[in-house]
Amino acid sequence: MPQVHITRRERFSASHRLARPDWSAEKNLAVFGKCSNPSGHGHNYVLWVTVAGEPDPETSFVTDLSLLSRIIKERVIDHLDHKNIDVDVPFMKGRYSSTENLCLAIWEQLVEPVRELGVRLVTVKVEETENNYAEYHGE
Amino acid sequence: MPQVHITRRERFSASHRLARPDWSAEKNLAVFGKCSNPSGHGHNYVLWVTVAGEPDPETSFVTDLSLLSRIIKERVIDHLDHKNIDVDVPFMKGRYSSTENLCLAIWEQLVEPVRELGVRLVTVKVEETENNYAEYHGE
Amino acid sequence: MPQVHITRRERFSASHRLARPDWSAEKNLAVFGKCSNPSGHGHNYVLWVTVAGEPDPETSFVTDLSLLSRIIKERVIDHLDHKNIDVDVPFMKGRYSSTENLCLAIWEQLVEPVRELGVRLVTVKVEETENNYAEYHGE
Amino acid sequence: MPQVHITRRERFSASHRLARPDWSAEKNLAVFGKCSNPSGHGHNYVLWVTVAGEPDPETSFVTDLSLLSRIIKERVIDHLDHKNIDVDVPFMKGRYSSTENLCLAIWEQLVEPVRELGVRLVTVKVEETENNYAEYHGE
Amino acid sequence: MPQVHITRRERFSASHRLARPDWSAEKNLAVFGKCSNPSGHGHNYVLWVTVAGEPDPETSFVTDLSLLSRIIKERVIDHLDHKNIDVDVPFMKGRYSSTENLCLAIWEQLVEPVRELGVRLVTVKVEETENNYAEYHGE
Amino acid sequence: MPQVHITRRERFSASHRLARPDWSAEKNLAVFGKCSNPSGHGHNYVLWVTVAGEPDPETSFVTDLSLLSRIIKERVIDHLDHKNIDVDVPFMKGRYSSTENLCLAIWEQLVEPVRELGVRLVTVKVEETENNYAEYHGE
Repeated sequence: MPQVHITRRERFSASHRLARPDWSAEKNLAVFGKCSNPSGHGHNYVLWVTVAGEPDPETSFVTDLSLLSRIIKERVIDHLDHKNIDVDVPFMKGRYSSTENLCLAIWEQLVEPVRELGVRLVTVKVEETENNYAEYHGE
Repeated sequence: MPQVHITRRERFSASHRLARPDWSAEKNLAVFGKCSNPSGHGHNYVLWVTVAGEPDPETSFVTDLSLLSRIIKERVIDHLDHKNIDVDVPFMKGRYSSTENLCLAIWEQLVEPVRELGVRLVTVKVEETENNYAEYHGE
Repeated sequence: MPQVHITRRERFSASHRLARPDWSAEKNLAVFGKCSNPSGHGHNYVLWVTVAGEPDPETSFVTDLSLLSRIIKERVIDHLDHKNIDVDVPFMKGRYSSTENLCLAIWEQLVEPVRELGVRLVTVKVEETENNYAEYHGE
Repeated sequence: MPQVHITRRERFSASHRLARPDWSAEKNLAVFGKCSNPSGHGHNYVLWVTVAGEPDPETSFVTDLSLLSRIIKERVIDHLDHKNIDVDVPFMKGRYSSTENLCLAIWEQLVEPVRELGVRLVTVKVEETENNYAEYHGE
Repeated sequence: MPQVHITRRERFSASHRLARPDWSAEKNLAVFGKCSNPSGHGHNYVLWVTVAGEPDPETSFVTDLSLLSRIIKERVIDHLDHKNIDVDVPFMKGRYSSTENLCLAIWEQLVEPVRELGVRLVTVKVEETENNYAEYHGE
Repeated sequence: MPQVHITRRERFSASHRLARPDWSAEKNLAVFGKCSNPSGHGHNYVLWVTVAGEPDPETSFVTDLSLLSRIIKERVIDHLDHKNIDVDVPFMKGRYSSTENLCLAIWEQLVEPVRELGVRLVTVKVEETENNYAEYHGE
């Protein structure tokens, strides 16, 4: 049976700062550069979630995209959109807000609910700017 | 010998409707949502076809892109562009016009002619809107 | 007092056909080309609505963008999205569904409600494909 | 002599919050919506600066684009990129950080230095998200 | 009678060099920067042509877009696409290949044939890179 | 330990020509089409470089993106941007300037320096036009 991949794009606008509290301002600047600005900065993040499965013979859908979109909104976007990632987001507590960590945390938020839809989570991709993005494939 | 992947983008504008004739209007609305609108709707679909092979030592090309483009046009785009997918497209007869099924049908249309070019069909990707796309990798 | 222009982007996916019932199929094909396909085709239309006004001293907004977006959705998008323009859209009745006419009809749908927001409608722009768009500036 | 318009695109990633200190949290939420989140949020802003003038007969340039880009960077981008607009940006002090006010303030930052280049500032356009942008034409 | 603007996008890939033969290599480098590289460089140029007129009551079109596109191809694209602008393009002979001059020359190529279509040429816009474009409005 | 993929986008504008000196003009035209134009043409190439590794527990970064970007600039972009690929680029000497060969040559330029960053080079992707791109995955 053929496996088809389906990708849903969502967006969130958020602020953050990259700095370790146990490092000096100088060291934070040396390592994190302008991302360590004490009062923060922000991005229009773009999120792509890819799932895979067999098209349902009844509907020809791998999964109901409106359900998938609702799960992404409830589990991810509502927590991140128009928020400060370092302050407001429960599933990012205790993690630095790098794009890498966003990918890993969003994967954790989605892997179970996506499995309950009957499909497999394949990739979480987070774009921070038009020049940079991160992806996690679950391995 | 190195395998290089080459991707060609093409586009088609088409209409369709998602609904099962053996279901009531209510059930179609419940399952297919606004895609079940009786008089249909449409999209600017974007198609990416990826093939892989070794660059030819004579030309340094994996394949002649103008040939690949012509095959995609003759086997796929000419049948879909400015058409009603549910009515006008021979290779979609008997299939619901989900993006998943478009991927699978376009794969079938291309896999043989691409092999005759001396390369391997790797991915067919169909974007329905800027927020949704499907991919088939042949497995 | 400075006049600032604000633009809101919205999208709708719709089907349509360009053909005159009083012309033969041959004449329709000659004039409207592949757009005259009897069973129709469709597009992901993109709509940009531009309004102008003075920023409000209290809020620094020219207008409340969420209100503007709601007006566009209620007066335009809800009527067009996932619809057949020639069949389903009251404000397009009796007009051919060219991008030009979409611009003019959307202008008529918005000019009064936008005035009631206290701003001036400046431009309605409708993109049919990545290669074609129409604009109306009210003159 | 023909007047040609030249546009330069630049980008900045910044955080901000929309709220009046003299209003209650409830009123701020009612007026500014999710933009009033107390710990802020952010965007990848895109800036387009348009200038006009006659092409120089010696160079065929309206203006030296690398000079124009340097002025935009020194007068605007260096102050905004990877910053908190409400805290870090001298030319936004005392103004709410709406996209409208960003346009007006960036215009003020650029109008004189652009005139010294021998050209005329025509438009400042600031995109906040893919769905919203503001423009100021100097009137 | 309402005036509607219609824009057609076309593309061409071309090479060029910016340098004056009567200047030294040093002066050319100082004025034209990396654009003066002796063996040239190139771009994927994007061209937008905007025309205005009244929609025809018979067809609801301002103009036949396929005719407009053919004129742009024959008068502009066929001369520029996959060419060296400084060597191969008759209508650029004797002009430096700045984006400004491309706009002016393309305007001259199109203004008469567009008038013969019964519409008015409004804007020629040429994008050289994602960060730079020029426009000519005929004044 | 999770492996995260990080992608950096860079751009270069270059000219080139596809033709074999040991073939006649006719044969070059037959095989390479308009790409064989004797005086060349050019593109705005877009390059995506993907690397993979474990996020560093100290910084949460897979790698320092500013270092990765500097390596790409020094090893690739500085050699290609505003250059003639067939004349000016040491690492393309003796190779036809197909997009396939650009991918392979850029991979060779990057694989060692990326390894020294402590990560693994996964993909080099080069886009020649909005309709064509090539990718090399190292196999």
